[in-house]
Amino acid sequence: MARLVQKFGGTSLADIEKIKRVALRVAREVARGHDVAVVVSAMAGATDRLVGWTRETSRLHDAREYDVVVSSGEQVTAGLLALALQNVGVDARSWLGWQIPIRTDDVHGKARIRSIEIAELKRHLSLGQVAVVAGFQGIGPDGQVTTLGRGGSDTSAVALAAALKAERCDIFTDVDGVYTSDPRIVARARKLDKITYEEMLEMASQGAKVLQTRSVEMAMNHRVRVQVLSSFVDAPGTLVVDEDEIVEQQVVSGIAYSRDEAKITVQKVADRPGVAAAIFGPLAASAINVDMIVQNVSEDGLADLTFTVARADLDRAVAVLEEKRATLGFAALKPDSNVVKISVIGVGMRSHAGVAQQMFQTLSEKGINIQVISTSEIKVSVLIAAEYTELALRALHTAYGLDAKE
Amino acid sequence: MARLVQKFGGTSLADIEKIKRVALRVAREVARGHDVAVVVSAMAGATDRLVGWTRETSRLHDAREYDVVVSSGEQVTAGLLALALQNVGVDARSWLGWQIPIRTDDVHGKARIRSIEIAELKRHLSLGQVAVVAGFQGIGPDGQVTTLGRGGSDTSAVALAAALKAERCDIFTDVDGVYTSDPRIVARARKLDKITYEEMLEMASQGAKVLQTRSVEMAMNHRVRVQVLSSFVDAPGTLVVDEDEIVEQQVVSGIAYSRDEAKITVQKVADRPGVAAAIFGPLAASAINVDMIVQNVSEDGLADLTFTVARADLDRAVAVLEEKRATLGFAALKPDSNVVKISVIGVGMRSHAGVAQQMFQTLSEKGINIQVISTSEIKVSVLIAAEYTELALRALHTAYGLDAKE
Repeated sequence: MARLVQKFGGTSLADIEKIKRVALRVAREVARGHDVAVVVSAMAGATDRLVGWTRETSRLHDAREYDVVVSSGEQVTAGLLALALQNVGVDARSWLGWQIPIRTDDVHGKARIRSIEIAELKRHLSLGQVAVVAGFQGIGPDGQVTTLGRGGSDTSAVALAAALKAERCDIFTDVDGVYTSDPRIVARARKLDKITYEEMLEMASQGAKVLQTRSVEMAMNHRVRVQVLSSFVDAPGTLVVDEDEIVEQQVVSGIAYSRDEAKITVQKVADRPGVAAAIFGPLAASAINVDMIVQNVSEDGLADLTFTVARADLDRAVAVLEEKRATLGFAALKPDSNVVKISVIGVGMRSHAGVAQQMFQTLSEKGINIQVISTSEIKVSVLIAAEYTELALRALHTAYGLDAKE
Repeated sequence: MARLVQKFGGTSLADIEKIKRVALRVAREVARGHDVAVVVSAMAGATDRLVGWTRETSRLHDAREYDVVVSSGEQVTAGLLALALQNVGVDARSWLGWQIPIRTDDVHGKARIRSIEIAELKRHLSLGQVAVVAGFQGIGPDGQVTTLGRGGSDTSAVALAAALKAERCDIFTDVDGVYTSDPRIVARARKLDKITYEEMLEMASQGAKVLQTRSVEMAMNHRVRVQVLSSFVDAPGTLVVDEDEIVEQQVVSGIAYSRDEAKITVQKVADRPGVAAAIFGPLAASAINVDMIVQNVSEDGLADLTFTVARADLDRAVAVLEEKRATLGFAALKPDSNVVKISVIGVGMRSHAGVAQQMFQTLSEKGINIQVISTSEIKVSVLIAAEYTELALRALHTAYGLDAKE
């Protein structure tokens, strides 16, 4: 008898028929004798509709009231799933964020969970009652409703699993697991049985959309075993676990890509101490995150500085720098949003040399020019022209021996 | 500078444009220097949709989860109206039932308010902040969400006005006040400037749908001055107040009717002590309310007993009595749902004789047969065949001098 947390997303709860199907799925775990806490998102489309209403109502964005309106979506599905469970003979009740309570900080709209008072919920679980928890929501220090930001229900689920010391946290979604690469592009991509927290974190932050980055971070910090699986197919998914649990570790586990990138080249700035700070300071002050950075060799005391920002921030970043043009003294700004970031990820890199070299060589053989490079302990990322995305992903997938057998 | 409670129903909040219009209306009272607490219903149609979902999900009716789902509608409008107020420069925040808190008993689906902890809300009001309160909802003794039953937002508003000792509680609706009779039937019906609590209570319980009975009861008990007015027309409505406030009291204030009635005649039951108890006991045990009762003169120790029940209960009432046929020993049961109850209401009756007599005579002159009669201190009700509804209402309206001047 284990304690499980199961999280269902909006597409799995899109209408009453689907909610009833989720109830049957949960009932199966209950029948196996497990204590189950379920975390629900809002019905697909509900959150967008509620967000639309708040925008239509007010140009001013009061995140407190936004949270009150938007959190109602998960309240509805929590109540409905509890009813659906009762309807198939499973004792169940709903729990709203403030009822548990799930305590967060006061950053409305993207609050962080501080603590979960788990005693009462546990008591109900131990009586064999399924807890249906409204995801995405909590209660702030001043007693107001907070929400955790988009995709926050994943975080709710992992946090709850950590607090409950659950054996596993199942994240049900519309894909059946984590793949070596995006199967819509790389036909030979394979579903992974297991992946380490570190790799999953890099995958998520480098563009794979299967899990929210924060939820993976939290799972890693609290050692919560997470399973990503499909709510529509009855098969095991991908387990996100500790490195120790993976016996035969591949050097490279997956290849991610992100189109959410844009490149800015600052041409001919003085190559002297303090210039980088003068450029990146104003960007940071405008809450623009800079990701990859490269500076070319100086000629005549002038250098080109190239870096990437989120595509959504490109126009703003250019405006910020143009405003400082006089003090920075550069010759020209070249923005370019026609780029993609490709990342090769694997904890095996720590002990294997040559992973980056293989990447550069493979891309070179295909005639793909690398614009910027960045690396971490378990990842190598390159920025290339967007038109090479598919070619690069497939070539790298083959080169690292990730292709599924025919 | 006064303290006001304003309640807006679902038709006044049916879409974002209407919500913005409500915000302007509230802003006007704020500009006059008043402290305002607003109570909101769900958007028109929202509650029906949510109720429909709970029914579709489960045949079993868990009123706790029903309350969780259904109360989300008022949460949405409370947040949106707070945003709309901010958008026109009015400081505002939403309050959910559990946040104030509005404490109720544990009768989920039709809970009664026990107490309102008003200190924190008052503090915010006194800072000039409008409180937008989600109507219809509270928190039960076990910390779960409760709802007050259909039309419960009226009750929320009056209870809040009582707790705040508000100068007035404005109930905005889709009619512009309380009329001497239904203006859709009686063309000469007049809007009343004032009406007493007692009369309003009789009007509401005798079929006038403008205010929920429980909210009038509560207003009467706590002496809350209630105004019924239109949210679409900018004009004073009808004030529901204490008798003292009405200087020139009419003998009759209004004529109500209810089609929600059905008649049952139990033919030839033994006319001996205990028979009435034997008949009405089982009905009461089945939670069927009996309203009007008449027993005709006994012949040969046998009498006919006629009474009315809510039309929705008719079939069930007949079934209950048929089941007891052997012990009750009646000859036949005659159900009839083709009836209407007409009520003449006025506190002036207390000091004026002849009101009932005038009713009987007026109906007799029009050839309308009275089937059952019941009276209270300020009301005379008769049951007549439904086809005479319009004729009776108009004739009585004229007879009591209620017609508007041409």
